[in-house]
Amino acid sequence: MNATQIDRTQIESLVRQAIQQSLGGGPSVAADGSASPPGWVNGKPNLRVSISARHVHLTDEHVETLFGPGAVLEPEKPLYQDGFYAAKQTVMVVGPRRRMLPSVRVLGPTRSASQVELAFTDSISLGIDAPVRHSGKIDDTPGCVLVGPAGTVQLDRGVIRAARHVHMNFADADFYGVADGDMMQLKITSNDCSTVFENLLVRADKAAKLEVHIDTDEGNACHLDRASKVELTKSGCSCKA
Amino acid sequence: MNATQIDRTQIESLVRQAIQQSLGGGPSVAADGSASPPGWVNGKPNLRVSISARHVHLTDEHVETLFGPGAVLEPEKPLYQDGFYAAKQTVMVVGPRRRMLPSVRVLGPTRSASQVELAFTDSISLGIDAPVRHSGKIDDTPGCVLVGPAGTVQLDRGVIRAARHVHMNFADADFYGVADGDMMQLKITSNDCSTVFENLLVRADKAAKLEVHIDTDEGNACHLDRASKVELTKSGCSCKA
Repeated sequence: MNATQIDRTQIESLVRQAIQQSLGGGPSVAADGSASPPGWVNGKPNLRVSISARHVHLTDEHVETLFGPGAVLEPEKPLYQDGFYAAKQTVMVVGPRRRMLPSVRVLGPTRSASQVELAFTDSISLGIDAPVRHSGKIDDTPGCVLVGPAGTVQLDRGVIRAARHVHMNFADADFYGVADGDMMQLKITSNDCSTVFENLLVRADKAAKLEVHIDTDEGNACHLDRASKVELTKSGCSCKA
Repeated sequence: MNATQIDRTQIESLVRQAIQQSLGGGPSVAADGSASPPGWVNGKPNLRVSISARHVHLTDEHVETLFGPGAVLEPEKPLYQDGFYAAKQTVMVVGPRRRMLPSVRVLGPTRSASQVELAFTDSISLGIDAPVRHSGKIDDTPGCVLVGPAGTVQLDRGVIRAARHVHMNFADADFYGVADGDMMQLKITSNDCSTVFENLLVRADKAAKLEVHIDTDEGNACHLDRASKVELTKSGCSCKA
C-alpha cells in the first residue's frame, strides 16, 4: 500500500501545481507598484482554487511526542497563504482495525489543538466516519492514533473532513459583497463534469489571499486539473452572477 | 492493499443501499395497479441516485479468456435497471508500472466491446489518465491489462471515467420535458457540502427506470449517503426549477 499512497501524493502535488499555474496565482503583485491588497493582480482579486490533500495540524506538545524532545516543525514548502507551510515531517494516521495512511503531511505552524483533515475517500479507507466540519470545530469528532518516528499520540478527537471554504482579505470581501462567515458558491466548468460547489464559507482575514480550498474528492469530482473556468459568486443562483 | 480495497467496496455497497432506501426506489409499483411506466410510484417518476463504483464490462470472448473456455457471467445481484446485474466474477485491473486494482466487479450482460469504468481517484491510483466519456465512447482512450483466474486480456482501449448520466423511460422524459441526448443537472443538498452536478446526459429508453449514475468521487464530494434532498432539473438554472 505504501507505493500507491506515495505515488498518489506525488500526483496530487503535481496536479495542485498545475492548477495553480493554469488558474492564476503566483506572488501578489500590484499593477502600478502601489500598495495593493494581498494577492491582487492588476488591481483585482486573483482567484486561486486549491485542492487541499489530506494533512495534519499538530500542537507543539504533539510535535515533540511524535518527533522527539525539542523537535519543531521544519518548513519544506510555503503554502499560498503567507506564513503557512508544508512541513518536512509526516505522520502515520492509524484508524480502527489497524487500517492506516502511512504518510500524511504535517502543515505548519503549530496550533492549539491537533487536527487531521481527510477527504471522504480517505476516511472510508481508514474506517473513520469523519464529519464535515470547518477547521477548528472538532467537538464530538472521532479520534485516531498518530505515529511518528519518536512516539505516538492518541487523539481523542480531531478527525474531520474539512468543509469547503474560501480565504480572502477584506478588500476581496468588499469586491464580492460578502463578509466573514457568509456563504458563497464556486462553479467549476470542466468538460462533461461541470460542478457547482455550494456552502463555501468565507474566512476573511486582513492578511489572507483569495483562495478556495476544496478537498481531493471535490477536485476529482469536477476534474479540476482540466477545468476551463472557475467562478466564485455569492450564494444564491449562479445564473444571476 | 487487498484488505483496504475489499473494505472500501463493501462500504460503498452499504452506502449505495442506504441511499437507495432513504431516497426512494425499490421495485416499480403502480399506485392503482394499472400499467405504469417502469419505476413510477404513485403515478410519478421515482428518482433514484446511485453511486456507480468502479466496474468492468466484458465481451463474451473476454469472459472466456479470463474465466476459461465456455465460461459465462454468473449473475450475483440484480441492478436497479431491469436485465442488468453485478456478476459473481471480478478481475484484476493492471495499469502501467504494475500498479493494480485487485478486484473489480464485472457487470453483465456482456457487450460488444470491453470497457473499464473508474472514478478519477481510481485512475490516479492506477496511473492511468482516464478521460471522462459516456459509456461506449472509447475511441482514443487508454487501455490496461485485465487478469482473471484463467487468463489475461490486453485491452488496447476502453478505460474511461464514466460521465454522469441519467437513465429514464420516455414517460420520465416527458415529465421533465427532456429528450434522449439532452443535458440535465442534479442538485444534492447535504450538510455543508451541497453540490450541483451539471452535464448530466439523458439516456432515454423504453424499458429504463429513472436513475442517476454518478461515480464514487462525485458521491463522496457531496456526501451522498447523508444527503437530505436530491433534485433533478433541466439544464440551465436550478433556481428556475
